Amino acid sequence: MRLTRYSDYSLRVLIFLAAKGGELATIPEIASAFGISRGHLMKVVQLLGQLGYVETLRGRGGGLTLGMAADEIRVGQVLRQTEGSFDLVDCFATETVTAHACKITAACKLRGMLGEALHAFLHVLDQYTLADIIEGRGAPLRRLLQLT
Amino acid sequence: MRLTRYSDYSLRVLIFLAAKGGELATIPEIASAFGISRGHLMKVVQLLGQLGYVETLRGRGGGLTLGMAADEIRVGQVLRQTEGSFDLVDCFATETVTAHACKITAACKLRGMLGEALHAFLHVLDQYTLADIIEGRGAPLRRLLQLT
Repeated sequence: MRLTRYSDYSLRVLIFLAAKGGELATIPEIASAFGISRGHLMKVVQLLGQLGYVETLRGRGGGLTLGMAADEIRVGQVLRQTEGSFDLVDCFATETVTAHACKITAACKLRGMLGEALHAFLHVLDQYTLADIIEGRGAPLRRLLQLT
Repeated sequence: MRLTRYSDYSLRVLIFLAAKGGELATIPEIASAFGISRGHLMKVVQLLGQLGYVETLRGRGGGLTLGMAADEIRVGQVLRQTEGSFDLVDCFATETVTAHACKITAACKLRGMLGEALHAFLHVLDQYTLADIIEGRGAPLRRLLQLT
């Protein structure tokens, strides 16, 4: 069980921008800091922009910054929006009548149990914000990201 | 975020054997009931046997049955053993110094938060046993699995 690369990179972008503390950043800068591809990051930043987490200032001297305060960005909510699917097993999909659908879905209690577990997972992450991730770690984070 | 096919099939095998209520089952029978490949199931059953969840009686008239009582098989524990990895993101891996390692691991609090969320996820599933999955659903489950 793992998160998608999309969620992973989304969180890294948000952490980077939070560590920047309001200064503008660029995609090449973030790509270089984490050693990941610019192409992947562009798609991630585009979605984060649509979701309001990232603001893009265009033109010379432009760049990226957080679109809302770090303490308003809840980790659980970010994952709900970036993860795409939390279909832990096939029967979570809305179209239950597919070739791969499990035949016992109608009588099986496992789906409800897994749903409860998923709720608990996201509930924990709803307690934390982007500000909590970097709290007290600003200096070492900036050093690791070569921002100082 | 989803469970591996390995975990999915493991749970299906255990549910099937529990629904059988002690009668012996065969791999072709389980494969046919769920419409999944025998090859995949053989590997799953082999692991479930090693873990003690399934007992294989060899020879004519042999077959598979649960290796322990359904109310002793905890869903969370099964997933811990079948899922292989709960590395939600790269930095969960024990070898943190890899080409793909995230550079900010040393200063990032996200890993601890995700670990706490994962703990909550598994804690919910530790409250449930295989017996809970089929409780009160024996008759419809057997009908869906064409066991009656």
